[in-house]
Amino acid sequence: MRITVLSGGVGGARFTLGLLALLRERLPDGSGGTTAEVTVVANTGDDMWLHGVRVCPDLDTLMYTLGGAVHPGQGWGRREETRRVSTDLAAYDLGWDWFTLGDLDLATHLARTQLLREGFTLSQVTDRLCRRWQPGVRLVPMSDHEVETHVLVTDDDGTSPRPERLMHFEEWWVRYRASLPALRFVQVGLEGAVPAPGVLAALTETDVVLLPPSNPVVSVGTILALPGVRAALAGSPAPVVGVSPIVGGAAVRGMADACLRTLGVETSAAAVARHYGLRSAGGLLDAWLVDTADSGCVLGLAGQGWLVSAVPTLMTDVAATAEIAAQALALVGREP
Amino acid sequence: MRITVLSGGVGGARFTLGLLALLRERLPDGSGGTTAEVTVVANTGDDMWLHGVRVCPDLDTLMYTLGGAVHPGQGWGRREETRRVSTDLAAYDLGWDWFTLGDLDLATHLARTQLLREGFTLSQVTDRLCRRWQPGVRLVPMSDHEVETHVLVTDDDGTSPRPERLMHFEEWWVRYRASLPALRFVQVGLEGAVPAPGVLAALTETDVVLLPPSNPVVSVGTILALPGVRAALAGSPAPVVGVSPIVGGAAVRGMADACLRTLGVETSAAAVARHYGLRSAGGLLDAWLVDTADSGCVLGLAGQGWLVSAVPTLMTDVAATAEIAAQALALVGREP
Repeated sequence: MRITVLSGGVGGARFTLGLLALLRERLPDGSGGTTAEVTVVANTGDDMWLHGVRVCPDLDTLMYTLGGAVHPGQGWGRREETRRVSTDLAAYDLGWDWFTLGDLDLATHLARTQLLREGFTLSQVTDRLCRRWQPGVRLVPMSDHEVETHVLVTDDDGTSPRPERLMHFEEWWVRYRASLPALRFVQVGLEGAVPAPGVLAALTETDVVLLPPSNPVVSVGTILALPGVRAALAGSPAPVVGVSPIVGGAAVRGMADACLRTLGVETSAAAVARHYGLRSAGGLLDAWLVDTADSGCVLGLAGQGWLVSAVPTLMTDVAATAEIAAQALALVGREP
Repeated sequence: MRITVLSGGVGGARFTLGLLALLRERLPDGSGGTTAEVTVVANTGDDMWLHGVRVCPDLDTLMYTLGGAVHPGQGWGRREETRRVSTDLAAYDLGWDWFTLGDLDLATHLARTQLLREGFTLSQVTDRLCRRWQPGVRLVPMSDHEVETHVLVTDDDGTSPRPERLMHFEEWWVRYRASLPALRFVQVGLEGAVPAPGVLAALTETDVVLLPPSNPVVSVGTILALPGVRAALAGSPAPVVGVSPIVGGAAVRGMADACLRTLGVETSAAAVARHYGLRSAGGLLDAWLVDTADSGCVLGLAGQGWLVSAVPTLMTDVAATAEIAAQALALVGREP
């Protein structure tokens, strides 16, 4: 079976880890291997140049998580991380000190930057870095072109004649914890970007496409906004299944609610489903897995033609996450 | 008094530290300040892009040494340095692991790279970094253009049809300890480079130009090879004094002998003097300070018109170095 996952960072990485666990446990020979081929298309819209090095938060989180090196408490960054470089860097007083630049993480940024400066594409670089991490999936950036999400925020205190300003998504997200009202997201470079080699094929030549409970606006949303992706999904013979990132009317992780608010989308499992849209009605998804806390929306969505089910969707550990992945695949008859 | 120093890394930095000590101790009010203005023009020919960040070995050595942060044993790099990033980076197996990339040093490279990528010139960046280090001199890179020294080496084992190959100077110098026979040095970018703002003025609108005991081929030699520098020195009203980097027929530090050999210059104090040339005969120097071990060449050089003197020139500590600087200035009547 070929499985394609469209992933952001922490949520997508944890989901994929559970998916891989599921595939391994279902393997008849119990060898721990898997007969499924999993391709993870990673959002690169949060990438940025920081102190001259290329930081790809979602790719890094996926590599570290699937490679067994992620910081277990944070869900991003490296285990046993230190900040010797960034502490010294702060003495130069150049700003960006709100962004955690761990020493071990920095090694990845330096390796990536070296290869990019040597002329390799981000796809090629990611392949090269994955030789170390052995993530057990084919990890592909959504595009080899640089796409950087900026946020038009407003200080909203009523005193400034021009209170709007643009900042990098990471600044809004990490520094301000998404607390500044966001008027809209501006994805610099998106219009001219094309999917990386293999991305469109991963959407059309596959047996199922999974949308993990990643941020529907700036993670999965950015991948979907890439020219060519929506059309490929619309024409794909594979069913497309999403797992709701909203549980009981709140974002499980991160601050997806602030992103949804910017788009005028209610923070609810049903509203996010309708935001993605039902494929038979011109949208993207065939099926939608919600949490038992949101079982109230199941009948309504089913009545509109959705394949929908309510199960526990909190990714509390790998076993629970494997079960969520199993339920998502079962919704469209793709049990491993 | 205005003093200009043309400097490489370790030797030039130590010499300048002694010079500053001299200027402070000679100040009448004993305030520890100085009435002299010292400009250090630093060689940037050993600079390189490493893992996507800009490394400027000589500028860094000067900043750390004059800023009191240099590793005392090495004479380059930072005190209490660690290698957490580079140890992890080695797991990506991208090469360059022979180059020491310390964590604290890396903070400097990242700060520099950020500012360069923001569009600042290397001069502007150096000014900005010096706000932290307060070197007590005006530190100027020789050029804002990238100049990178490469070395045409030969494996010289007689078996290969094309045994010559080019490598970055730092690879030849650090990795191979200058042990591979160098056929010649190729300074990429030198022809199109121009002196940084203030460099030519520092050569002509000054009271004395000092050449510390830096490498005459690839440190001072690179600065001198920069278009416009020789002409400025030739026309400068200021006397030009050099301190021999060769003592008793050997390079005191580093592997200057390997560089001199490539140019067909004997490793002796007199030969290096003649390599620089006497200004009144179309060369660069007015005066040459040699070690007492080389006093045998004093009469011969003096007979050819050189201002020359033999004194202890080993920079064993700051006090001894201050005395060397005093002797160099005294040779041309520029006592502070």
